[in-house]
Amino acid sequence: MISSSLGKRRRLGRLFRRPSGNSIVIALDHGLFMGSMTGIEQLPASVEALIGAAPDAIQVGPGAAEWITPLLDAHPQVSLVLRMDATNAWRRPVGQPATQTWVASAEDAVHYGADAAVVYLFGQPEAPQAEAENFRQVADMIRDCGRLGLPIMVEPLMLGGATRESDTDPVAVAMLTRIAYEMGADVLKIDPPLRSGAMDYDALRQICDSVPVPVLVRGGPKVKDESALLASMRQAVAAGSRGVVFGRNVWQAPNPAEAVLLLRDAVHGSRED
Amino acid sequence: MISSSLGKRRRLGRLFRRPSGNSIVIALDHGLFMGSMTGIEQLPASVEALIGAAPDAIQVGPGAAEWITPLLDAHPQVSLVLRMDATNAWRRPVGQPATQTWVASAEDAVHYGADAAVVYLFGQPEAPQAEAENFRQVADMIRDCGRLGLPIMVEPLMLGGATRESDTDPVAVAMLTRIAYEMGADVLKIDPPLRSGAMDYDALRQICDSVPVPVLVRGGPKVKDESALLASMRQAVAAGSRGVVFGRNVWQAPNPAEAVLLLRDAVHGSRED
Amino acid sequence: MISSSLGKRRRLGRLFRRPSGNSIVIALDHGLFMGSMTGIEQLPASVEALIGAAPDAIQVGPGAAEWITPLLDAHPQVSLVLRMDATNAWRRPVGQPATQTWVASAEDAVHYGADAAVVYLFGQPEAPQAEAENFRQVADMIRDCGRLGLPIMVEPLMLGGATRESDTDPVAVAMLTRIAYEMGADVLKIDPPLRSGAMDYDALRQICDSVPVPVLVRGGPKVKDESALLASMRQAVAAGSRGVVFGRNVWQAPNPAEAVLLLRDAVHGSRED
Amino acid sequence: MISSSLGKRRRLGRLFRRPSGNSIVIALDHGLFMGSMTGIEQLPASVEALIGAAPDAIQVGPGAAEWITPLLDAHPQVSLVLRMDATNAWRRPVGQPATQTWVASAEDAVHYGADAAVVYLFGQPEAPQAEAENFRQVADMIRDCGRLGLPIMVEPLMLGGATRESDTDPVAVAMLTRIAYEMGADVLKIDPPLRSGAMDYDALRQICDSVPVPVLVRGGPKVKDESALLASMRQAVAAGSRGVVFGRNVWQAPNPAEAVLLLRDAVHGSRED
Amino acid sequence: MISSSLGKRRRLGRLFRRPSGNSIVIALDHGLFMGSMTGIEQLPASVEALIGAAPDAIQVGPGAAEWITPLLDAHPQVSLVLRMDATNAWRRPVGQPATQTWVASAEDAVHYGADAAVVYLFGQPEAPQAEAENFRQVADMIRDCGRLGLPIMVEPLMLGGATRESDTDPVAVAMLTRIAYEMGADVLKIDPPLRSGAMDYDALRQICDSVPVPVLVRGGPKVKDESALLASMRQAVAAGSRGVVFGRNVWQAPNPAEAVLLLRDAVHGSRED
Repeated sequence: MISSSLGKRRRLGRLFRRPSGNSIVIALDHGLFMGSMTGIEQLPASVEALIGAAPDAIQVGPGAAEWITPLLDAHPQVSLVLRMDATNAWRRPVGQPATQTWVASAEDAVHYGADAAVVYLFGQPEAPQAEAENFRQVADMIRDCGRLGLPIMVEPLMLGGATRESDTDPVAVAMLTRIAYEMGADVLKIDPPLRSGAMDYDALRQICDSVPVPVLVRGGPKVKDESALLASMRQAVAAGSRGVVFGRNVWQAPNPAEAVLLLRDAVHGSRED
Repeated sequence: MISSSLGKRRRLGRLFRRPSGNSIVIALDHGLFMGSMTGIEQLPASVEALIGAAPDAIQVGPGAAEWITPLLDAHPQVSLVLRMDATNAWRRPVGQPATQTWVASAEDAVHYGADAAVVYLFGQPEAPQAEAENFRQVADMIRDCGRLGLPIMVEPLMLGGATRESDTDPVAVAMLTRIAYEMGADVLKIDPPLRSGAMDYDALRQICDSVPVPVLVRGGPKVKDESALLASMRQAVAAGSRGVVFGRNVWQAPNPAEAVLLLRDAVHGSRED
Repeated sequence: MISSSLGKRRRLGRLFRRPSGNSIVIALDHGLFMGSMTGIEQLPASVEALIGAAPDAIQVGPGAAEWITPLLDAHPQVSLVLRMDATNAWRRPVGQPATQTWVASAEDAVHYGADAAVVYLFGQPEAPQAEAENFRQVADMIRDCGRLGLPIMVEPLMLGGATRESDTDPVAVAMLTRIAYEMGADVLKIDPPLRSGAMDYDALRQICDSVPVPVLVRGGPKVKDESALLASMRQAVAAGSRGVVFGRNVWQAPNPAEAVLLLRDAVHGSRED
Repeated sequence: MISSSLGKRRRLGRLFRRPSGNSIVIALDHGLFMGSMTGIEQLPASVEALIGAAPDAIQVGPGAAEWITPLLDAHPQVSLVLRMDATNAWRRPVGQPATQTWVASAEDAVHYGADAAVVYLFGQPEAPQAEAENFRQVADMIRDCGRLGLPIMVEPLMLGGATRESDTDPVAVAMLTRIAYEMGADVLKIDPPLRSGAMDYDALRQICDSVPVPVLVRGGPKVKDESALLASMRQAVAAGSRGVVFGRNVWQAPNPAEAVLLLRDAVHGSRED
Repeated sequence: MISSSLGKRRRLGRLFRRPSGNSIVIALDHGLFMGSMTGIEQLPASVEALIGAAPDAIQVGPGAAEWITPLLDAHPQVSLVLRMDATNAWRRPVGQPATQTWVASAEDAVHYGADAAVVYLFGQPEAPQAEAENFRQVADMIRDCGRLGLPIMVEPLMLGGATRESDTDPVAVAMLTRIAYEMGADVLKIDPPLRSGAMDYDALRQICDSVPVPVLVRGGPKVKDESALLASMRQAVAAGSRGVVFGRNVWQAPNPAEAVLLLRDAVHGSRED
């Protein structure tokens, strides 16, 4: 049953930290899709290097949640966002449809003490059967999580265009974001809507306005110019987004803890807790 | 179990308002299929702008039902028709089959206090496996709703012809409407049967006569000539249809409340309640 | 469980009327497959026009059973044969496989007070996956009905040949009829085995001999020469068939009640009850 | 659960008759796959003509088990082997994959008092999805039967080669036989391994040695030279097979009872019981 | 539920023998995939020839576990690793996707007293639907085993490259190994990462470092130079792997027991227990 429950409100209250009500989620679930990467070879070390800087949440899959259990134990104020799905999306050959495979259930997420589940919603106009299977699975998971009062973060991703650029077109991002919300998402984690390679803040504002739930912006691949990225995030928050989900731009940074602190400044408006 | 139950009769009695026994359903579920649109960016505002004019029902999906909960709370006499399915039908590339994904169950609909569920039935002669999957799902949902005494509105849509025009041919509309009824639909929501682009009232009368349950006519895309549209709806009611399901022609109108009032005049034969 | 139960024997005893032990089933389920047709636009009127002539059974789907409930109430001695499946078989484009979709369960049929369920078994040599799906569904339904003591009538139809003629070839009809029986059918409803367009009575006799359960012969499309049709049915009964399932040849006849009475003469050997 | 249970041992003890411990199974399930055939038009007559000669078992499907119930009642010492699956294998067009459809469950087989269930395992290298579906179904059925202490006879059949000959090549037969055993088969019913059209007894011995459960040899199509066939079966038993499954070579013989008696001599080493 | 349970720890404690904490698993499950082979025609004899040399575990499928039950009874200190899946991976024609079929459930494995279950995880970039089906099945099995406290060994295998060589490329092996761990594997059994045909020990060390669970190295096809193989395994252990899974290189060796003893020397660092 999809319904605003006390459980959802309390868990979202932990994920979106007061007083700003915004959130910084550090995603370290890349190994589930693409195998190990520089910066997350030793997941406990990677988490240890940044968790002291108090991100609002750590996002990992089930195997990794076991791996970093001692760190999650030691930092109960940092939320766990459990990645529920494996996918070939990031490593499939051109032209192949993206698939989605559950690696955890809503019960698993609750068992781990997660404050939210996160799943992909793929827009695949050229592969309607794969899209429908994914939509079906996400709709079921939304309802499974709802029954347990567990917030579900849906990550709409267009995979239809000839290029990654056309998939981050504001029109494409806006469409799938609203669909995800109308299906019952509690939190949305979106691609930055781009125009000529730059974030379109007006489009972002419209997207954030088009749904009544928090919208987080994905960080995407590692960029060189960290201060530009931070400025961009600050503007994204000003445009209505409620925070960020960052991965490589944090744990491939020279100083991950400092990167988190800078994000806190951009997202929470202050380096104080 | 498909069976005329007390629950169905009471709920249909709310949806088809006395004394006319006809119904005006305002559909605002477009975001579930195509993302946001002009006129429904802020769903609560859109609903607020028209609900005072007392349409018989508001049709939305599960996420949206949460969004407009305060308005539904405040207007208990306006029925909720819950959209049960997401679909790629309105945004798929040419030649791709339409898919259907449940976003709500019969139990969800009852939980929300809906007076009816609404689902698509796609006639896809060129994509028989997709058609069969959709038929299977609809047949199951009809029986799920039946067990709970919840009326189900089935929306037959031909998706077979080379053009949208051939799909609204009276013969095509008539065939799928009767099939939907014979499968167990409680209410039918049909495309206006068109001949040379104009509604064929004789065909509509035959279609309405061919099933013993209420037939509602879809409004379709926004038209310019509002008064012609209203005249057409009036004739449709005269031909035996029991009302309309309108979307863009209401909430993209300059004055949505006025549009509803005009519809009440056309459908209920009076602006009085 | 497939097993000759008391329930099956009692229900078959109503369907195959004494003293002849034969049966006349009037099928009015065409709307479920092809939409409305001349003669069944108003199903209650169609049934009313013939039910007084005491056919042994009326065959309709679930929606239609609701529609004609008052007539079924008023004629408890006329059996209800519930059509369980929708199919695209009669309206699919050339070369597309036939699909089968349940629109009722064995429990539904018992709930409606049906004396038998009727389902299609499609022989589709060129579409083995569609054939296997259909066989699987039919085998499951046979067992579901068996558990409830509900007789199941299986309607074997070859859909493999280049033409409808090759599908009614005696060899094709004989093969699929025996397969259907060996799967557990309680009653068989077959295409008349044709040779050069005429019924092959020797072939029919062999087919009826090849299974230990009643075989009914389908009437097929409306024919002009009614007396030849009746003579043919009389010969079919003499060759071992236990009656007929007629549709258009009854309800498109100028006088449907008279058509039933003539059938009674041909099938039961007497116009008396 | 796969496990040597008391139930399996007792049922196998009836199927493999003492003192030889070998078995003669007469298969009359051909109608389930190919429709009626000369010799099994009237199944009760066919069974009656041979059952007095005391074969160890009769193999039929569920519909046929009903048909010959009185004979099975009268001969409780003759085991029933229930055919669980329908298949298009024997009638599919060249190049189409073989499918498998359950027509009975393990519970059905126990309900009928069967001493074993029999199922096909198709090796289809060129149709891996169809092969996997079949393997999945067989693995599940093995476990269903195991839970009820019901022995399961698996019939490995290669359907991969360009010709039926290449499918009965000793290497092909040996491979699939061992796979079937390793999946959990209790009895194997194999194609005679052929080399240049003649049974390869050395290969047969190796195959029988390669699994610790009884191996029965299929009779295959009707042959002319009955005495050569019997001599061949005698040699097959000498090479380690534990008996035969014969169909047409028995019930299309001029004297089926005599054919069974001759088989008893070949398989049990004596015409005495 | 995936969670480090007491049951997992105790079972892994038997599989990874003290004091080295490493493990030698002898796999004899080849017949399930490819039929009988030289060296495993008589499975009990094959096991008897080596079990006295005290390998840490014997890996077989369900049928074979029955076959060698007396030997497993007599050697309770040797763990049983139950092969859960049949596959066409080793015998499929070029270009066909690999399929996976369960032949045992987690309950079966526990019933047999296994200390671990072993399953394949196929990386199939060119066959995403087959890959997703396999991933789905493995994820479910991981959770089924987790609920019973049964360790699951996952065997990642790339099947994507044009050649077997490209599939054992260090990058490919590393990626799929980490994915398998992140899905929840308790033990990993990997292809030796090869560079120009030779094991790349640096790559192996990185792979072993990239997951916090034991990594075993597959032996692969029979090699001629036994002492080179042993030296290689010794280096593999030095590089961080926790032992080996060997098949043909043991049971096709002139003296399988001696082969196990040599492996003990390489893996456990001593021939003493």
